[in-house]
Amino acid sequence: MPYVNIRIAGTLSREQKAAIASEVTDTLERIAHKPASYTYITFDEVAEENWAVAGKLLDSDA
Amino acid sequence: MPYVNIRIAGTLSREQKAAIASEVTDTLERIAHKPASYTYITFDEVAEENWAVAGKLLDSDA
Amino acid sequence: MPYVNIRIAGTLSREQKAAIASEVTDTLERIAHKPASYTYITFDEVAEENWAVAGKLLDSDA
Amino acid sequence: MPYVNIRIAGTLSREQKAAIASEVTDTLERIAHKPASYTYITFDEVAEENWAVAGKLLDSDA
Amino acid sequence: MPYVNIRIAGTLSREQKAAIASEVTDTLERIAHKPASYTYITFDEVAEENWAVAGKLLDSDA
Amino acid sequence: MPYVNIRIAGTLSREQKAAIASEVTDTLERIAHKPASYTYITFDEVAEENWAVAGKLLDSDA
Repeated sequence: MPYVNIRIAGTLSREQKAAIASEVTDTLERIAHKPASYTYITFDEVAEENWAVAGKLLDSDA
Repeated sequence: MPYVNIRIAGTLSREQKAAIASEVTDTLERIAHKPASYTYITFDEVAEENWAVAGKLLDSDA
Repeated sequence: MPYVNIRIAGTLSREQKAAIASEVTDTLERIAHKPASYTYITFDEVAEENWAVAGKLLDSDA
Repeated sequence: MPYVNIRIAGTLSREQKAAIASEVTDTLERIAHKPASYTYITFDEVAEENWAVAGKLLDSDA
Repeated sequence: MPYVNIRIAGTLSREQKAAIASEVTDTLERIAHKPASYTYITFDEVAEENWAVAGKLLDSDA
Repeated sequence: MPYVNIRIAGTLSREQKAAIASEVTDTLERIAHKPASYTYITFDEVAEENWAVAGKLLDSDA
């Protein structure tokens, strides 16, 4: 019963999300023996204004 | 001091969220003896494009 | 496909967790029309040393 | 490698988020000895309709 | 800057976690063009007593 | 009503957690005008075997 939350800064296309979901589900089935039908994956696309690294928001000027 | 995060695919009406918050808070008070005033509940309404089951996004064609 | 994460300070008995899971799943089925079989609920029992309110860890002396 | 998720009801200005990210990163560097460059901070601004305290959504009438 | 949280019921071996982390990081680099060095992955191994599906804890008798 | 989750790889002493909780609560009060009594902070101390950066678990040999 895996639950996977993928948070990224910015956005992904629908095609990217579909491909990532497919691959990650396959990884968990092959390596962790979790049936694919039990795997939930959610994507959180976080605005760059809402994500900081090293104390600076990602939309900051350098 | 419970903190409850409810993530659902799609959306809920305000009335549904109000009723769920009321019932879940009551459940935690009756069963876990947590005072209602300490219980925080947040709802995350996740777009179907951002939720995958069995390796497929929920907005996929069958 | 709800995913519910319940975080509480301290611990719950197995019986409390079973009763809470049953009631919350029922709440989501009745109010949000989410089939019970799709609802995942996880409990995180957080040590009082790891939970702060008002800037003080919960295991602090008053 | 800290990962910090800050969820607040309502919104913050960009300036508030920048200042909070800077201070929290500094706190973790000074007290926990985590290099600033390894610290990720994300903000989730949750609508008042999606946050309940004491069983009531925050946008409820009193 | 992806942050990925993988929650599974039960445990994984160190080898399983290493292989999953490697594959998921590679997936995000290939498909989402996120440099591997920016990807954080955390595993939460949740006891079966703390995970419910369909309103029943996973360690329940059938 | 902020809810802050601080995840770090490894452990912190009780003194470190108390100091971090105090400072972060103060930061949110000063900058975001959130009353201290409404701020919850939780710490998740994640084993190095359960945290990967750049596709490698943190307890890996170099």
